[in-house]
Amino acid sequence: MLRFDSDYMEGAHPEILRRLSEINFEKNPGYGSDDYCKSAADRIRAACGCPDARVYFLPGGTQTNATVTDALLKGYQGVVSATSGHINQSEAGAVEAYGHKIITIPEKDGKIPAEDLREYLDAFFGDSGRSHMVEPGMVYISHPTEYGTVYTLSELEALSGICRSRGIPLYLDGARLGYGLVAEGSDVTLEDIARLCSVFYIGGTKVGALFGEAVVFPDPAYDDHFFTYAKRHGGITAKGWILGLQFDTLFTDGLYLSISRSAVSLAVELKKGLKEKGYSMLTDSPTNQQFVIVEKSKLRELEGLLTYSYWDPYDESRSVIRLATSWATTKAQVEELLELF
Amino acid sequence: MLRFDSDYMEGAHPEILRRLSEINFEKNPGYGSDDYCKSAADRIRAACGCPDARVYFLPGGTQTNATVTDALLKGYQGVVSATSGHINQSEAGAVEAYGHKIITIPEKDGKIPAEDLREYLDAFFGDSGRSHMVEPGMVYISHPTEYGTVYTLSELEALSGICRSRGIPLYLDGARLGYGLVAEGSDVTLEDIARLCSVFYIGGTKVGALFGEAVVFPDPAYDDHFFTYAKRHGGITAKGWILGLQFDTLFTDGLYLSISRSAVSLAVELKKGLKEKGYSMLTDSPTNQQFVIVEKSKLRELEGLLTYSYWDPYDESRSVIRLATSWATTKAQVEELLELF
Amino acid sequence: MLRFDSDYMEGAHPEILRRLSEINFEKNPGYGSDDYCKSAADRIRAACGCPDARVYFLPGGTQTNATVTDALLKGYQGVVSATSGHINQSEAGAVEAYGHKIITIPEKDGKIPAEDLREYLDAFFGDSGRSHMVEPGMVYISHPTEYGTVYTLSELEALSGICRSRGIPLYLDGARLGYGLVAEGSDVTLEDIARLCSVFYIGGTKVGALFGEAVVFPDPAYDDHFFTYAKRHGGITAKGWILGLQFDTLFTDGLYLSISRSAVSLAVELKKGLKEKGYSMLTDSPTNQQFVIVEKSKLRELEGLLTYSYWDPYDESRSVIRLATSWATTKAQVEELLELF
Amino acid sequence: MLRFDSDYMEGAHPEILRRLSEINFEKNPGYGSDDYCKSAADRIRAACGCPDARVYFLPGGTQTNATVTDALLKGYQGVVSATSGHINQSEAGAVEAYGHKIITIPEKDGKIPAEDLREYLDAFFGDSGRSHMVEPGMVYISHPTEYGTVYTLSELEALSGICRSRGIPLYLDGARLGYGLVAEGSDVTLEDIARLCSVFYIGGTKVGALFGEAVVFPDPAYDDHFFTYAKRHGGITAKGWILGLQFDTLFTDGLYLSISRSAVSLAVELKKGLKEKGYSMLTDSPTNQQFVIVEKSKLRELEGLLTYSYWDPYDESRSVIRLATSWATTKAQVEELLELF
Repeated sequence: MLRFDSDYMEGAHPEILRRLSEINFEKNPGYGSDDYCKSAADRIRAACGCPDARVYFLPGGTQTNATVTDALLKGYQGVVSATSGHINQSEAGAVEAYGHKIITIPEKDGKIPAEDLREYLDAFFGDSGRSHMVEPGMVYISHPTEYGTVYTLSELEALSGICRSRGIPLYLDGARLGYGLVAEGSDVTLEDIARLCSVFYIGGTKVGALFGEAVVFPDPAYDDHFFTYAKRHGGITAKGWILGLQFDTLFTDGLYLSISRSAVSLAVELKKGLKEKGYSMLTDSPTNQQFVIVEKSKLRELEGLLTYSYWDPYDESRSVIRLATSWATTKAQVEELLELF
Repeated sequence: MLRFDSDYMEGAHPEILRRLSEINFEKNPGYGSDDYCKSAADRIRAACGCPDARVYFLPGGTQTNATVTDALLKGYQGVVSATSGHINQSEAGAVEAYGHKIITIPEKDGKIPAEDLREYLDAFFGDSGRSHMVEPGMVYISHPTEYGTVYTLSELEALSGICRSRGIPLYLDGARLGYGLVAEGSDVTLEDIARLCSVFYIGGTKVGALFGEAVVFPDPAYDDHFFTYAKRHGGITAKGWILGLQFDTLFTDGLYLSISRSAVSLAVELKKGLKEKGYSMLTDSPTNQQFVIVEKSKLRELEGLLTYSYWDPYDESRSVIRLATSWATTKAQVEELLELF
Repeated sequence: MLRFDSDYMEGAHPEILRRLSEINFEKNPGYGSDDYCKSAADRIRAACGCPDARVYFLPGGTQTNATVTDALLKGYQGVVSATSGHINQSEAGAVEAYGHKIITIPEKDGKIPAEDLREYLDAFFGDSGRSHMVEPGMVYISHPTEYGTVYTLSELEALSGICRSRGIPLYLDGARLGYGLVAEGSDVTLEDIARLCSVFYIGGTKVGALFGEAVVFPDPAYDDHFFTYAKRHGGITAKGWILGLQFDTLFTDGLYLSISRSAVSLAVELKKGLKEKGYSMLTDSPTNQQFVIVEKSKLRELEGLLTYSYWDPYDESRSVIRLATSWATTKAQVEELLELF
Repeated sequence: MLRFDSDYMEGAHPEILRRLSEINFEKNPGYGSDDYCKSAADRIRAACGCPDARVYFLPGGTQTNATVTDALLKGYQGVVSATSGHINQSEAGAVEAYGHKIITIPEKDGKIPAEDLREYLDAFFGDSGRSHMVEPGMVYISHPTEYGTVYTLSELEALSGICRSRGIPLYLDGARLGYGLVAEGSDVTLEDIARLCSVFYIGGTKVGALFGEAVVFPDPAYDDHFFTYAKRHGGITAKGWILGLQFDTLFTDGLYLSISRSAVSLAVELKKGLKEKGYSMLTDSPTNQQFVIVEKSKLRELEGLLTYSYWDPYDESRSVIRLATSWATTKAQVEELLELF
C-alpha cells in the first residue's frame, strides 16, 4: 500500500533521533531554559537575520495558533483570516475558545488578496458603528496556504504595508514553511518573512521533526508575557530541550531547507507525471501538496493500493484528492505512485 | 554538578528510543488513528481491568488538566481542588482560561480530606442561594500530590463514594502516577484508581516517556466528544503514533512500574540517608520527591555542586528544597548526593 | 427634527410607568422571585399555549443571545447563523467571548433558507473529518430579521423539522417579535413559534418596555440551570419585579400585539407613501423597519430635518437608509416624514 | 409582614419616576449618546473632582464587575480579591467566565489588609517561578464590604500606594457606595476614591435608582475601548438615556448622599436599639447593613412577621442574619422592627 495522505506520516530526520539518543541521559533543566533551546534560538535568529528576535518552541500547530492569537489580541479584537484558513476550518474552535472571533475574507487560491484586506479595513475603520463590532486586531495568513499555494514577495509586502499602516500585527502560520520557502519559483525568503511579519512560526512537525513548532517574534516588542500565555494554553513542554534539540538540528547546515527541497522536487515530479497522464490540478501548487482532480471510478480502482486525503467534491463524476510528499518521501515511491495512475 | 531538581530532566527509556528509530520510516495515519495507539490503549485497558475504557494520548499535563475539566464541566460548574493543587498554583490559569472557577479546600499533606469535601458539598447543596454561585461539578485530586504524598485506598474510596452520591466526577491527575503506584507502603493499585475515578491520567512525561500523558475514562459514558475538546485545546498531536508507541512500550512487560520502582527505592534510600544525617522532611513522602528542610548556610555551601528545586521558606534560618529521583537516576548518583550533606 | 432612526427612542408604554409608580414602595423579593414575574410568566405561558414553559426576564438583547447560546451549546459546539445575523455582525463578539464559534450560512432576505441549512448539516455530519471541526449545536434565526423580513409558517416548519431530525435546538431572537407577529400578511403566531422553537425570546426593549426581554423555553427540558448561566453573564436583575411588571402589563389585554400593530400599520403607510413618490425599497419589509434606497443628494437635503439609520452603500449615487416606526410613533409624524420626501 | 432583607426591594426615588414620565415621548438617540447621559457624566465628574474622567452607565453590578475586570486585565493576569469578595462568592463565576482567575487573600472584617496585599505581591514578584503562575493584574475591593464595613482613608491610601508602586490598577466596587460615603464616622469622600482608585463604580440599583451603575475612570488612560467591552458583555443598554436620567437625578442637589444618609441613620438607630435589647453584631457596621447574631428559637418566633437575609451559621443555638435599610426605609418601619425583638 502506497501512502501519500500527508507529510506527517513518518517520524523524524535520522540525525534528530541520533542526537536524542546521544543526550538521552544528560540532565537538562526544564521548560525551555536549557542550552539546546538557546542554541536553536540563536540559529533561527541568524537564519532570519533578526538578532533581537524572541523564539519559543511549542509542541503543535493548533496550539501555536491559539496561543499567538490569544497573546496578541485584546479582548475586543478578532483575527482576520481567509475563509479557507486553517484556524477557521480545522481547529475545532481553538481560537474562539479563548474568546476571539475569526473575521473572514473570501480567499483566492487560499490567499487573502491585499486589495480585499484593504477594502475591509477601510470599511471597518470608516464605520461609525464600529464600537458595536469586533475590531480586527491581527491578520492571519499561512504560507503555504491550505491549497499549497504561496504568497509572492510583492503580495506579502502589500499585506505587510496595509497591516503596518493600521498598526495591526501580521501573523504567518508556517506549519509547512520549509516547503513554502523552497517552492518552485518562489521569491520569498525566511529573511523576508521575518522582515514583513510581526510574528510567525516555523513548522517542525511536518518538516522533519518528531513534533514541535518555533514561534518567532522578529521584534521583541510583540512578545508580552508569551511564555505565560503558552503555559496557560498547556503549550510549555516540561522537557523543552527535546524541542530545542530538534530545531537546533534542523537549522544546522541548512537541513531544514535541504529536506524541504527534496519533498518539493518530488511533488513537482509527481505533478508533471500526472499532467502528462491527462490529470488536472485544482490549483497550480508549487509545494509538497498536490490537489488532483480524479474520476470517482478511478478512486474505486485505487482502493487498497493507495491512501490519500479526500479533499473536496468536484463535479458529479470527479473528486479532488490531496497527495502530499514529505522530507522522507523517496523517488521510488513517487514512481510507484505514478504507475497507479 | 549533581542534578536532583526534578524527574523530567532526562530523555526517555532507551527501549522507547529504540522502537522510535525502528519504525521511523513507517507511514502511519495521523491523529491517534494508528495501530500503536490502539495497542497501547488495549494494554492500558488490560492494566486497569476496564475492557470498555476510552483512552486518549495528549502531549502534556497542563493541557490534559485543562482539557479534562473543560470537557466534563458544564458552564455553570467549577472544579474542587486542594488549595495546593497543581491546577490552582502552577498552571497559569489554564483551567480558568476556559471559563471555570477552581473552588479550593485547604489541603492536609497535599490531600483533600474526605470529611472536608463532604462538609463543603453538604453546605453548598444545602444553601438556598446556591443558584448565584459556581456549582461544584468535578473533584480534582493528584496522586501523588504536590507534596509527594499518596492517598490510601480507604481515603480514595471515601472521596469516590462522596462524589458518586452527588453525581460528581472524581478526576485524578497522575502526572507521576507510576511513582504513586509503587510508593512505599501504598495499598492503591491502578485497578483501584480505575474503579474509583471517573477519569484519570497516567503520566508519561515524568515516568519514562519523552512526553505524553494517557487519559483514561474507565466508563465510556464520561467521554462525550473528548477528541474534539482535545483538538480545540491544541492537544491532538498530528503524529499521534509517537505517543501511542511510547505508552505501548511502557505498558509492555510491566516497564512502567519497574522503572517507577527504581526511582522510589532510590528516593527512600535518599530519605533514609538524610535522616541519618539529622535532616528533617517537610512531609513523610513515600514517593520519588523528597522535601528536605535545610539550613540556608548549607544551601550556600551546595552552590555549584548540586541543583534542586527551591520549594518554600521554612523559618528564619532554614528553607525547604525538593530533591527528586527519576526512572533514570542511578544508585551512584544518590550516594554522591548523600556525600554532599 | 423628525427622528425615525430606530424603535428604541422613546420610553415605555404609559401604563407601564403608571404601574411602576403605583407599586414603587412595595417591598418585593429580589432576582425574579416576586409575584409580578410569576404573573407575567403565567400570561406568557398562556399566550404561547405552553403550560409547562419556563420563562426568564433579562435586561437586554445582546446579553440574552450570549446567555442562551452559552447555556445550550456544549464546549465543542458552535451556533449556525445567517451571515447577516445580529449575533454575527453587531454584538461585539459576545457569543465568541464565551468560547463559541458562529458558523455562517449566506442569508437570503435576512433569512436562512431551509434547504441551505439542510445541505450544510448533511455535509457536516457526513464528513469523516468532522471531529476536527466545530459541531453545529444550535441554529439561530431572528424574526423579524435584520432586514425587516419575516419567516413564513412553512419556512419555520421546515427549519424546525431539520433541527429536530438532527437533535439541534432552534433559537429564535425576537428582539422585535411583536412587529413580526403582526407583520403584513404573516401567517406565524406566537403559538407557532412556541411549538417550533426550542427557545426564543420576546423583545420588550423595542416593543413598549423601558428595557427587558422574556426568554421562553416551551419545553422545560431545555432549561438546565439557565438562572445560573444568566447570573454568570451578569443578566440577573436584582429588582427583577421591574421586568416582571413590564411584561405583565404588555401581556394583559393584548397590549403587546396592539401597540405592535400600530407601529406596523404606520410603517406600511410610510412604505406605500414612499413608493408612490418613486422610491424603491431594499427588501419588501412587512414590519416596522423600512430600508429605503435614497439619492445621496437627497440625503444631504434632509440634514437637520430628519434622523435615520444609515444602513448600506447601494450604488455610486444612492445609499440605503433605515426608517423605523415604533409603538409610540404617531400618524402625524409619518405624514410629516412623507412631506420631506 | 416587615421586610428588611435587602436594599433592593423598592423601586426608585420618586423624582426619577417623575422625570421618566416627563420625557417618556421624547426621542433620544441610543446607546448612551444622549444628553441625559452627558449631563449625568458631567455631574459625576464634578462630584469626583475629575474633569477628565470617563463615565459609563451599565445596568447591573455583576456585569459591571465582569466587564471592568475583563477590560483591564491582560490574558495572563488575574484579579486579587478578599476571599469574602462579592466577585469570589456570589457572582456565579462571571469573572472566570472571561478567563480570569480570582486570587484570594483572607479578609479581615471584609477588607483586604494593606500589609497582607504587600506581602502577597512581594512574594509573587520575587518568585522566580512566577511565569508559570497567574500574575496579579488588578486589585478588587468593595466599599462598603460584604460585611457592611468601610475602609478608612489611611487604609485606602495604603492600598492605593501599594498598587501604584506595582503599576496595578485598584478597582473599587461601589454597589452600595452611597451608604459607604455617609457611613458613621467615615473619613472617605467620593473625591478621595476618585483620587485613589484607577476605576470604580457608583451603585444606583441599591441606592435610589430602578437599576444602573456608573463606572468611573478618573484617569482616561485606563479606558481602552471600554464601550466595546461592555457591548460584548451585553452591558450596553439600547435606551441608555434611562440610565443617564437616573444618575442625572441622583447627582442633582446632593440627592445621592441625602437618601443614603437617611438609610444609614436608620440603620444606626436599628443597631443601637438591638444592642440595648442585648443583641450582638457580627461586625461593627457603620452602614445600612447590620449583621445580627440571633437565637434560632427567636428566628422561629419571627416567622411570618419579618423577612431578612440568612447570612451564616454562628454557633449551635445562634445564626447571623442581615437586616438592611434602604433609601426608602421609614423610621416607623425601624420602630416596628425593634418591637419584634
